[in-house]
Amino acid sequence: MNNNSVFLGDKFYNREHVNFVLFDVLHAEKLAEHEYFSGHDKDTIDLYLNSIDQFAKEYLFPHLVEMDRKQPELIDGRIRVHPVHKDIMRISGENGWISILASKEVGGMQMPSTIATAGSFILAAANYSGVVFAGLTMGAAHLIESFADKKYHDIYLQKMFAGEWQGTMALTEPGAGSSLSDVVSTAEKQEDGSYKISGQKIFISCGDSDVVDNVVHLLLARVKGAPAGIKGISMFIVPRERISDDGSLTDNDVISAGVYHKMGYKGAPIAHLIFGENDNCLGWLVGEENKGLSYMFQMMNEARISVGLHAASISSAAYYASLKYANERLQGRNIAEKAPEKPQVPIINHADVKRMLLFQKTFVEGSVCLELQCSYYADMERVSEGEEKERYNLLLELLTPVAKSYPAEMSNLSTSTAIQIFGGYGFTKDFIAEQYYRETRIHTIHEGTTAMHGLDLLGRKVMMKNGKAVMYLMQEVMKDITSAKQNENTKVHASSLEKKLMQLQELSMHLMGVAQKEGVEAYLSDATLYLELFGILVLGWLWLKMANIANNKSANDDSANKEFMKTKLLCCNYFFEYELPKAEGLLTRLKSTNRVTVNMDSTLID
Amino acid sequence: MNNNSVFLGDKFYNREHVNFVLFDVLHAEKLAEHEYFSGHDKDTIDLYLNSIDQFAKEYLFPHLVEMDRKQPELIDGRIRVHPVHKDIMRISGENGWISILASKEVGGMQMPSTIATAGSFILAAANYSGVVFAGLTMGAAHLIESFADKKYHDIYLQKMFAGEWQGTMALTEPGAGSSLSDVVSTAEKQEDGSYKISGQKIFISCGDSDVVDNVVHLLLARVKGAPAGIKGISMFIVPRERISDDGSLTDNDVISAGVYHKMGYKGAPIAHLIFGENDNCLGWLVGEENKGLSYMFQMMNEARISVGLHAASISSAAYYASLKYANERLQGRNIAEKAPEKPQVPIINHADVKRMLLFQKTFVEGSVCLELQCSYYADMERVSEGEEKERYNLLLELLTPVAKSYPAEMSNLSTSTAIQIFGGYGFTKDFIAEQYYRETRIHTIHEGTTAMHGLDLLGRKVMMKNGKAVMYLMQEVMKDITSAKQNENTKVHASSLEKKLMQLQELSMHLMGVAQKEGVEAYLSDATLYLELFGILVLGWLWLKMANIANNKSANDDSANKEFMKTKLLCCNYFFEYELPKAEGLLTRLKSTNRVTVNMDSTLID
Repeated sequence: MNNNSVFLGDKFYNREHVNFVLFDVLHAEKLAEHEYFSGHDKDTIDLYLNSIDQFAKEYLFPHLVEMDRKQPELIDGRIRVHPVHKDIMRISGENGWISILASKEVGGMQMPSTIATAGSFILAAANYSGVVFAGLTMGAAHLIESFADKKYHDIYLQKMFAGEWQGTMALTEPGAGSSLSDVVSTAEKQEDGSYKISGQKIFISCGDSDVVDNVVHLLLARVKGAPAGIKGISMFIVPRERISDDGSLTDNDVISAGVYHKMGYKGAPIAHLIFGENDNCLGWLVGEENKGLSYMFQMMNEARISVGLHAASISSAAYYASLKYANERLQGRNIAEKAPEKPQVPIINHADVKRMLLFQKTFVEGSVCLELQCSYYADMERVSEGEEKERYNLLLELLTPVAKSYPAEMSNLSTSTAIQIFGGYGFTKDFIAEQYYRETRIHTIHEGTTAMHGLDLLGRKVMMKNGKAVMYLMQEVMKDITSAKQNENTKVHASSLEKKLMQLQELSMHLMGVAQKEGVEAYLSDATLYLELFGILVLGWLWLKMANIANNKSANDDSANKEFMKTKLLCCNYFFEYELPKAEGLLTRLKSTNRVTVNMDSTLID
Repeated sequence: MNNNSVFLGDKFYNREHVNFVLFDVLHAEKLAEHEYFSGHDKDTIDLYLNSIDQFAKEYLFPHLVEMDRKQPELIDGRIRVHPVHKDIMRISGENGWISILASKEVGGMQMPSTIATAGSFILAAANYSGVVFAGLTMGAAHLIESFADKKYHDIYLQKMFAGEWQGTMALTEPGAGSSLSDVVSTAEKQEDGSYKISGQKIFISCGDSDVVDNVVHLLLARVKGAPAGIKGISMFIVPRERISDDGSLTDNDVISAGVYHKMGYKGAPIAHLIFGENDNCLGWLVGEENKGLSYMFQMMNEARISVGLHAASISSAAYYASLKYANERLQGRNIAEKAPEKPQVPIINHADVKRMLLFQKTFVEGSVCLELQCSYYADMERVSEGEEKERYNLLLELLTPVAKSYPAEMSNLSTSTAIQIFGGYGFTKDFIAEQYYRETRIHTIHEGTTAMHGLDLLGRKVMMKNGKAVMYLMQEVMKDITSAKQNENTKVHASSLEKKLMQLQELSMHLMGVAQKEGVEAYLSDATLYLELFGILVLGWLWLKMANIANNKSANDDSANKEFMKTKLLCCNYFFEYELPKAEGLLTRLKSTNRVTVNMDSTLID
């Protein structure tokens, strides 16, 4: 089974939209005016995105189906994966993509994260399983660069940047999934400063493979005697192969105990690993003891943006496949003139198919805007000082659970909608939609389930610094509402959003009262729904922001551009008509004091 | 890979709930007071359901995983399926299950459809792919019994009832999926009264297999010279093997051109068939020429109830697997006391997990009630006369698109929620949830996509006989609202539903105005959302109806029963708190006059 026998379509993302968000919405090219990002400009950014685009089309997309059909297997103690992964890592290394975000000090390119995020969107839209080795390696290298002693930079970073070694994040254990405070892997300090590592890790993405010579695990464990809970967790560099002084590699007692067989995302191996089964696994401390979780949060926060981004990537590809089909497939006639003698029409002419296409397009493009906006805040935080720095940091912190979870949840619906457009064919393996539906289902789970992000948003982020983050976000949103009110195209929508924001504020006040009167369990009991509500309003804001620009551009620009801007206004209109109203039911439930779940006696349900 | 290596749980449905709906809500045993159903009583019904239950546990559930892993293949012109299908058909025949609904005149049992529907729910909850051969055979036999000349009864029915032959419905063609008026298969009358059949049919469930000796297709085709559109479609009996006078079978030129490989529901073969490739395929007319579609609607309406039912079946099994896991899996602590020294608790204690369980349970049980209610209307239509008969007919007609589509759509979310409860494990093949998620995805597509049912509801059913069907339904609902208002447990919910019903009425009036002013395309443009809204309100009604009984029973009954009734009130409470509010956003959108989709220029989106 190869791509040729499966209906894929020919387009998996929209470059114009990526450019629109980067340059018209965010003016990302201006980031280069800051010292840290100097050397980059619109031309170098274009070159980078062009090379990403070409690679995605030539290497990643053509192997999409194959990587689903031929999944990784554990053979003779090593996980074997699709051979194209080797090319991908080599080329990613050669092109400097793995070090693109790293500092020049360690040989990186100091590209704005906003741009690298756009690149990552394109790659994952072509083939999600194809990008994880390089992506995880970037994250692991960033941790080493940020928190590990310089001597480890020399040992690991160049190999990782070159794509010769890869990195992982080794957090989850059989008894510690969502609850990281329950990590039980241990580390015992040796005389030479290294630690003996012992424990099991599960669900480790790219935890082992035959792609590269060495795997560098960033692993969480407890130093013997450390306090219970999250205050006793440390981070270690634990390579699959130890590096001798002469550079040669020797086995470090990291055993691949299994590879998970999954419903989708099959091109990427997910491993069950045993560390120190033979009492011969060594690790090296990153930073200080017992601070591991705070370090890991850097990587987790980056990974969370990636999860939301890649959910949008997969949905983008599913959307374009279904759009192509909707333009080609003849079925039925205009509902007002059903004469059977007339020829059938392409299904894109039916109102419900238009709705299903707009649903996908608006979700995908809104989510791309959300993820790039977050990366932009990360870049601005880096180059700002004082209160300004805090402002960007708080905006990013507040939006991270939304950026992770809203696209992840919606991607299940969006890819399902793509299947629906294909009708019966969508349920078959002859059309790509079902693969996207299976692939994307992981995103509401990995890097923290949606429920965890609901708790993060309502339990931590909304309240942090006395609600300062929310205040900053409201300022951003109100700016765009004020502009949108000036134009007939967006005036009504601007008022709708303003009204919903006021309701959200009232709701948040109401919930503070619940926290005081009924306690934290009642307060957080519907945090998942609060997150969903928050996500809808954030997307509404971003569509208004994009529509403001479209309003300006279509008043001034040439005609080709006008068509593009019209489409943006169409999507904004769709969002406010079909998606924003979903906030109403959520508000009703969240304001209710009927504690259905908290008061539920678990033994009652059977 | 067999069941043993996959986490399945041990329960796939709740017999108490089935009994509650059958006997407490519908009093289905009283159907036997009608002549047609005489001979059945509570005891024989229990015996029937017990034997179904035992068979489901012993034959169907144990092969659930295997049938997913080893899918049908076309080998030497015949589709080969899992061998357990042979046992299933044989036993279904031996036990009289295939003829259970048929009239005594043709050797059937004249069981109320309400009871047979409950049986079908149980079987499909154990293994959806395992029940389709018998189910399709029942439907095809029913068509022959209802509309074909008696001489065909003798030829086909006994073999089909015995499980020696099976039936199909052969409608869909490459150019005629949702648009049946575009069927192009042809039939040419021969001198002996038979017809020469020629054409291709796709997506034919159980269209070919090595399970039984013969396959009896109920096929739609056009007699040469017939009018265009649905007025020129006739129905034919087209067996895979022709029956000679001596009873021997000879090839009837029905070629299996392919078997579809699907994302789920893999145990059932779906075939691409070519009829008359060698100009040697004969068919026999059912009833009169050009009336085929009206006959087929009998089977389609029954099949639509089955689709909704089986979506609930699969979701039921997914729910019980996730419930078992939620009770066993330790993770995290009560949110109010997070001390890491305390032991972790089963995840069922977390509010969001409770919400996810109640979502599934309430959906499954509400949908079972909906499908059984529909079957009950079908039974009552059969045994009634005059206006009463019309009333039951109209109630059934009105609810059929809802009964097909609401559970189908919600099942995607419900099985997804089951996955979510399993966390990372839910995405792996080691746990059953992902299989249910894949299996159920077909239900919004086959027997008419959700969009088609939206058009059916808003374009036909709501308006038929000047809205008489809706009026009858409102009478039913108001009765239950009035009762529910008498009890503190349900008073508030009853008022909420009443208010929403009034809004639905207002909306329907508003839409009639749209039809007049803007035309049918605008009127029907959001029919899918109207269907969703209607479905939510219907489920609200049924939960109120069930709660009314729970109110009465818990006031009077013994304590074991009281626990059960408490759970019903809990589910009702959940539905009104979490599901009914979703109607709000739908009402807002449906009342809007902003014609986003109708006015959309299709060339704009890319």
